[in-house]
Amino acid sequence: MTVPKNFARPNPETLPRFPKVAIIGGQGQMGQWFKRFFEGQGCRVLVADVDTPESPEEVAGQADVVVLSVPIPKVAEVAQRVAPYLKPEGLLMDLTSVKQGPLAAMLAAFPGEVVGTHPLFGPKEPNIVGRIMVLCPGRGERWFNWLKDLLLRADAKVKVTTAADHDCLMSFVQGVTHFMLIALGMAIRRLGIDPDRLDEYATPTFQNLHRLTRHLLSQDAWLYACIQLQNQENLRTLGAFEEAVAQILELIQKKDAEGLVRVLEENQRYYGQQGW
Amino acid sequence: MTVPKNFARPNPETLPRFPKVAIIGGQGQMGQWFKRFFEGQGCRVLVADVDTPESPEEVAGQADVVVLSVPIPKVAEVAQRVAPYLKPEGLLMDLTSVKQGPLAAMLAAFPGEVVGTHPLFGPKEPNIVGRIMVLCPGRGERWFNWLKDLLLRADAKVKVTTAADHDCLMSFVQGVTHFMLIALGMAIRRLGIDPDRLDEYATPTFQNLHRLTRHLLSQDAWLYACIQLQNQENLRTLGAFEEAVAQILELIQKKDAEGLVRVLEENQRYYGQQGW
Repeated sequence: MTVPKNFARPNPETLPRFPKVAIIGGQGQMGQWFKRFFEGQGCRVLVADVDTPESPEEVAGQADVVVLSVPIPKVAEVAQRVAPYLKPEGLLMDLTSVKQGPLAAMLAAFPGEVVGTHPLFGPKEPNIVGRIMVLCPGRGERWFNWLKDLLLRADAKVKVTTAADHDCLMSFVQGVTHFMLIALGMAIRRLGIDPDRLDEYATPTFQNLHRLTRHLLSQDAWLYACIQLQNQENLRTLGAFEEAVAQILELIQKKDAEGLVRVLEENQRYYGQQGW
Repeated sequence: MTVPKNFARPNPETLPRFPKVAIIGGQGQMGQWFKRFFEGQGCRVLVADVDTPESPEEVAGQADVVVLSVPIPKVAEVAQRVAPYLKPEGLLMDLTSVKQGPLAAMLAAFPGEVVGTHPLFGPKEPNIVGRIMVLCPGRGERWFNWLKDLLLRADAKVKVTTAADHDCLMSFVQGVTHFMLIALGMAIRRLGIDPDRLDEYATPTFQNLHRLTRHLLSQDAWLYACIQLQNQENLRTLGAFEEAVAQILELIQKKDAEGLVRVLEENQRYYGQQGW
């Protein structure tokens, strides 16, 4: 098989060997984490945040790659602020946990290359080895391939998909997952149950689930509220979860053992079909 | 402080050194597990089940300790069947995962010593070391203390409480825990999402939660239906969970970030108060 002459092969050679990276929101936990990460890959990293000597516009003007590490509702505003200062041949990317809104906002603000990313891990991970990074192509291939290669060389797992598919998957992976843990904590609080006593009587399954509940409570409440509110796929997924809750509870209220077994067996069959 | 002369101190010396144990339902997975466990402690173990040569009545008549390892809805019936054959100085106990109903049924069927137990682990555990056994005293202290000592010597964790307290705790530890995992599986099925793709995009939290969901689906559907239907405390707890789900979903539908943060912070404060 021959490669056609005019095949537009992305050519990383035309990129700077060690691109300069600017992280906007670089004093947040994920911003700091990615500063260390990019430095570890040989890049020089500039940082701007609300109280840094250099403004977002100033660092964006000096960099090849501009990384928005800001809260989801701020992405559009910050993208518009810094875009006029970016090198036209540079990259604009973000690190937020929903992708449709932020990617559209970056594409609208900046006419050059754009990538949406979502690191599926928190700032407590010592390194990126084995951790998942989702990349959603926005515009252009040169920087997309540079970023992908950089991550793969650092032994990250890279998943490439569309923003819509990402948000649909995340409405389960993050949306309904956090939602049910928050609801569990709320029910325990409302009924005045001592969480420590529950741990004393824990099965292995509950021990695990309650550890996740406590872990979520140790995190930033605003971030978790954002994850619920900013992913537009959540309403459908949470609605399906609420419906399942109501239907299963009705079976229990009616003492319908066969109905309950049927739900479990349908779930078993569904998971079985998927090759599990 | 002196011990009054007529203090009825339990005297394990009056018990047989190696009691004979009969397990009714002894061919089920937990029955087999406890057969091996009691044999490991030096007891001779007889077994009866629906298709064994000896009937439940026959083995009960030969044993010092009769263990009911039958489905929760069968405890009352089996207790009534075997109780007339038990030695009056013997012990009747069970292994089921709710305690109020089964303990009351055993106390009504047998006038001698009775203990309700709930092993908080499944039949795949290699041994009892570090595993939790809940004991609910029914009637009498001699056998209760024998059983407790036997478990502690085998390095189990023993928790002693009332049947009502046990069932209240289990409505969280098992009831709402299984319930929310079943509802998650049902929502994933209803929306036609591929479970394997969710795993490819999993955060550490989701990975854990989805592993619990899959584990539950690998278990016996009837047992899990029983655990939902037989614990009379479940309705209150599941009702509180359903209410939490509805309230949090309403906040999300109204895009009420502050309301959502307030729920998270109230949960944080509640867990914090408890000394976490």
